[in-house]
Formats: sequence, C-alpha cells, structure tokens
Amino acid sequence: MSRELYDEEGNDMKECDVVIIGCGPAGLSAAIFCGRANLKTVIVGMPEKSQARLAKNIQNYFGFPEGVDGTVLLEKGIEQAKNFGVEIIKDDVVTAAPEKEKKFVIKTSKAQNLLSRAMIIATGVPIRLSGIKNEEKLTGKGVHYCVSCDGPLYKNKKLAIIGNGNHAAEDAIEALSYTTDITIISNSPSFDFSEKYLGGIKKWNIKTVCIKVREFKGSNWLESLVLENGTELKYDGIFMACGVAGALDFAANMGLEIENNILVVDENNMTSTEGVFAVGNCAGRCRQIAKNVGDGCNAAISVIKYLRSRELYFDYVHKTKTT
Amino acid sequence: MSRELYDEEGNDMKECDVVIIGCGPAGLSAAIFCGRANLKTVIVGMPEKSQARLAKNIQNYFGFPEGVDGTVLLEKGIEQAKNFGVEIIKDDVVTAAPEKEKKFVIKTSKAQNLLSRAMIIATGVPIRLSGIKNEEKLTGKGVHYCVSCDGPLYKNKKLAIIGNGNHAAEDAIEALSYTTDITIISNSPSFDFSEKYLGGIKKWNIKTVCIKVREFKGSNWLESLVLENGTELKYDGIFMACGVAGALDFAANMGLEIENNILVVDENNMTSTEGVFAVGNCAGRCRQIAKNVGDGCNAAISVIKYLRSRELYFDYVHKTKTT
Repeated sequence: MSRELYDEEGNDMKECDVVIIGCGPAGLSAAIFCGRANLKTVIVGMPEKSQARLAKNIQNYFGFPEGVDGTVLLEKGIEQAKNFGVEIIKDDVVTAAPEKEKKFVIKTSKAQNLLSRAMIIATGVPIRLSGIKNEEKLTGKGVHYCVSCDGPLYKNKKLAIIGNGNHAAEDAIEALSYTTDITIISNSPSFDFSEKYLGGIKKWNIKTVCIKVREFKGSNWLESLVLENGTELKYDGIFMACGVAGALDFAANMGLEIENNILVVDENNMTSTEGVFAVGNCAGRCRQIAKNVGDGCNAAISVIKYLRSRELYFDYVHKTKTT
Repeated sequence: MSRELYDEEGNDMKECDVVIIGCGPAGLSAAIFCGRANLKTVIVGMPEKSQARLAKNIQNYFGFPEGVDGTVLLEKGIEQAKNFGVEIIKDDVVTAAPEKEKKFVIKTSKAQNLLSRAMIIATGVPIRLSGIKNEEKLTGKGVHYCVSCDGPLYKNKKLAIIGNGNHAAEDAIEALSYTTDITIISNSPSFDFSEKYLGGIKKWNIKTVCIKVREFKGSNWLESLVLENGTELKYDGIFMACGVAGALDFAANMGLEIENNILVVDENNMTSTEGVFAVGNCAGRCRQIAKNVGDGCNAAISVIKYLRSRELYFDYVHKTKTT
C-alpha cells in the first residue's frame, strides 16, 4: 500500500498519510486510531526510550485493576497498532520540514525518508539526568520522577526530593498527599524558589538542605544517599526534580509555537502549523499515561477529519477499495 | 473516614473531598486518581447507564490488543476505583448547588446528601432514541451510534446513516474511510444540511432518501429495515445520527457555561465555576473511551492541585496520618 518515491538526492521516499514521531503510549494510541481508519500510518520512534517503560507497576491506568508493568503495556500497544497495519520504524527523527502540496518530509537518522500528509509529534519530554551515580540503575527502585505516579508507594514514609527550583518545590508539595516527612535536597550550592513556593515550604514544614549528592546506594532497591563528603543519609524514596531537557529541536526548526518547552496545541491537538499535531508530555497538561493515551486518540480523530476534508482522502479510499 | 453531618432539614449529609457524577470510563478514571491521592472520593452514578457498556468489542483502547467488552472494561475500572477506597453510590443526582466555604451540596434521587469540596461532572451525553422498533435490541448488533468506533466493522459494506441533519452528514462523510456505499435516510419529511455538508454529500456520491423507517428486523443481528409502507431494505449496518439529548439540567441550574449542549472547560477540565470540573462526552472533543479516560485523569490531577492549594488539604493529610 505504501508508495515509493525518490527525493531530490535520489533516496527512497516512502509516502504515507500520517507519520507519528514517538513510540510511547500517546504515539501508539494515535497510531491505533489512524491505522484503524485505514490511514497509511508510520511510527518513527524507539519504544525502549518511552518513560512508560520505567514504570514497574502502573496502578492508575483505567482497565488494569491489578496494575500493569510499563514494558508489558507498551508491548500490548505495539501489537494493537500492528493489528491495524501500522508500520513501526525504530529510529530517531533528524529533520521534519514542510513540502509542497501541504505535505511534510521527515528524515530519520538511518536515512529513511518519509513524505507524509500529516504529522503527530509524540516525542515526550526526556528526563534531565542529575549525574548522581546509580540514578539509572535504581530508577523505579526507590528513585522516581513522578510524584503523581509513584507517590502512593510512600505513605507516611521518609522522602527526599532532589532539585533546587520550583519543580522540586511543586513535587514536595504534591508529596504531602502521602507523607509529611519530606526534605528537598538542592544538589547544588543554592535554592531558587519563587515566593509562592517558599510560602508553601514554610507553612508545611518541608525541610530544605543545600548539599551535594554523590551516589545512590542499593543493589535492588535504594538504601541510602551518599554525600560528596561521604556521609550516608537514609530515605525510603527519592523523587528527582531537576527539570526537564528540551528535546524538540526539529519542532523548533519547523517554527512550531513552543511555550515553557511545551508545544502549544489547540483543542484538536493541532500545533501552530496546519497538519502538524502534538500529543503526550510534549504537548502539556499532566504527565500521565491515561492523559497521553487520550491525547493520542483526540489527535488521531482530528487527523482523520483533517485529511478527509481534502480531495486526496477520497482518492485514497478508492485506492484501498481497489487494491 | 467520611464525616456525617446534617442538612437544614435534618437529613444525613456525607462530607467528602470530591463527588464524581457519572460512572463511565471518564468518571471512573478520575476516581482512580483522586482515590489514589487519598482524597475522600464518592461516585454517584449508574454504571449500567454508561454507553461504554453497549460496545461489545472495543478495539481502540490502548492496552487491549485482543479487544475488550465494554461491560468487562467498566467492571475492571470499578474494581480499580474501589481498590483506592472510592465509594460508589448507585443513584442519580437531582440537584447540585454551591454552599458556603466553597463547598457544594449534591442531592440524589434516593435522598443521599453529599457535601463536597469539589465536583467532577462525568454524566456523558445520552443517546436520543429514534423510536424505530428494535433499536435498543439490535444496538451493537448492526445498529450503531459511533462511526469512529464501529465503522471499521463495515469495510466495503453497504451502510445506512439515519438522521436528517448535519450530524448524519458528518457521520456519512466519516464513514467514507471504510466504504463508499452509503445512504443517508432522513426518517423524517425533509433534510436539513448546511452548505458545507451538502457539498461533501454531492462530491462523494453519498445517497440520500427521504423515507420513514418503522422497524429494524433481525433476531441476533440486523437483517433489514422495514419502511412505513412495508418495504424491506437490506443494509449491512446502520449508524443512528439523530442528534443527542441534553442531560445537564443540574449543570444548567448551577449556571455552568454550556455551548452546543457541551460544558465549556479550560485546559484543566475546570468549568466556568471554580471547583467544578467536567470530563468525558459532556465536556466535548471526540467521543471515545480513550479520550474520556484521559479527561478523567487530567481533571483529577487538577482537583488534587486545586484542593491542595487550600488550607483544608493539609488538615486532611494530618488526619489520614493519625487514623
């Protein structure tokens, strides 16, 4: 069903209806709807990069009362998308640019070129690593990134939040839902909280310490923090709140409107450029699998409507009918 | 954990943090997040009224590659919400009104009174029945209400859309993703399409007939339509597109902003009244379980943040710690 063309340099160019960039819950949910609506749908992304994979027991995604492992959930989603004919290219996008006739050219790091009539950006927002030893090894095992997701594991336990800005303060205040023994560790020479958060920290007796952490200790689960001076501190759990890195270079290059590292979208999940949609963590609102799956669905329905209102869509229906 | 009070008439009044009105995927998803964040969460609604229950095989909800029955999915969600201490009152809401101290009083048809600090409206949008014989009996069995949901069952099949306005035209155009043999049946003396839709109907050869349907025939699956004059017409599938009934009387009485029968919400899913949130079909965007689950999640996170910023939330944390 895919149509092979060539770009100006003579490279193969795969033509499709919609390219989805990113292979987490938001991108896969969008792919399921697009594929099921007979759109030629290609995902470019690395499922192993999805943050959902780090969640060992997702308890808050509707439909899984026993909880579900993030990796298992992603695999189910990939199977589901493939059931509807979605192609998954395991690669990173290097550039995306508008082409004539309201199309887009997407180039990947392994030189796969795609010509698409619509794009859905579902790249997520990568975590900014702190550089503390064993951070990745103990992720999901005492070291976490999302209080709404993993806070409930620490009811009345001793928590540390690592970060020196408002992100850390907000996480600490959110963690009050679960415990009152909370310390914000700056891991840098000073704190930089806004007035609003300073008030909350004081009112709710959140402790703050300016110290530098060298290492997370623990073989299968976090046991302690080791400071630069060798002191060990015991905490039941750690939430990393060092901010997030920007990862939307190609989106910025396309001139898409971005605010606070988040792509601006309308109620159809369309960005500031017609035909380009964004879903999941890179499109704002809360960072949750459930919300991101909903985003994917909403954007896909918008893409289906967007493509249908154009002449080409009808050709496409005829094409699928006769092949 | 619930606190019993009395209203002015001496009736029992149950105090809670958030009342969720409606027990479909949107309401249950919200309840899961609120319950998990230690909010005293009460759902008032009838799971058997959720339209999700009509879906025999949901193929597009992320995480279920084999598909899932709507009733089964709802039961999983109910179990999941109860795991987090959510109470479900199987009843209808009669009135909801603001009370002093930014609280709300919600009264049910069986005279259960609730005093809540926040409300999430998740009542859905009830289907407007056509009055055609056997409509309910054959629902999900050849008679459907949602082209995005069930259109893929009818690839290259013969479809009828029943309805005389833009809702029918839009469904017909959407169904072009699956087949080109589509007839809109008015089931009333005339059509009332806007210019935009008339153009699409003409361009894409969608047939239109002004006839009145008396009956859907079929024992386990739709076999034919019977007209008023006794003529039988064969179709593979029918999509009902007679519009939707308004069901937000109590919301209108509260003065919530409503546009086209849909509650107006901001990006936090908050309505025009502080502390009152809306999710799912009654809050607009596409009518899909995935989107509605995402709405529930987003509203719940907003409610958690909304309640946390108030003095009472901290008391509540202390309370749960000491009990």
